[in-house]
Amino acid sequence: MNKINTPYYAVIFTSKLNKKSVGYEEMSQKMYDLAKNQKGFIGFKSVRQELGITISYWKTLHDITSWKNNLEHKKAQNKGINDWYASYEIEICLVERCYSFN
Amino acid sequence: MNKINTPYYAVIFTSKLNKKSVGYEEMSQKMYDLAKNQKGFIGFKSVRQELGITISYWKTLHDITSWKNNLEHKKAQNKGINDWYASYEIEICLVERCYSFN
Repeated sequence: MNKINTPYYAVIFTSKLNKKSVGYEEMSQKMYDLAKNQKGFIGFKSVRQELGITISYWKTLHDITSWKNNLEHKKAQNKGINDWYASYEIEICLVERCYSFN
Repeated sequence: MNKINTPYYAVIFTSKLNKKSVGYEEMSQKMYDLAKNQKGFIGFKSVRQELGITISYWKTLHDITSWKNNLEHKKAQNKGINDWYASYEIEICLVERCYSFN
């Protein structure tokens, strides 16, 4: 992730998929390509076993709302609810501190 | 995760392991068992592919500091830096909003 000073925002998206997930991977890639070109986008992390955790990082709450309301993203969200997700949880977080070791 | 009203805290721990990770899984399990009995612990999510994302949830910043300074946890942190992690990042977050779909 690009280095940025705190505070910034994180959207933690935790999900479980249905058995049928045809088209899910392509849509995930498409949404990542779209998100990274949005105003205020900082970075992205995603890992999936049975549970999937995807975290996107944003400069402001306003940037998160704009991305949530993006028309292509809205279509993907609806398709996700109808076809792909058994369950999900979204947490909007203010990242107050960040440490790293390398 | 137990349902709890916002705001609460999340610690996002993102890590990559070295090739040698002997003893890592046992220690992870031991730390989870220890963490869930600490004051202020709310919940835990963990997923690993090449990248690992572990999120622990806490009621207050003070609870996070107490867990960080727990003696058994300190030993595990040192072992992690010396033996297991190629890199890691820790983000301390205030969870302002939470939505879910089930």
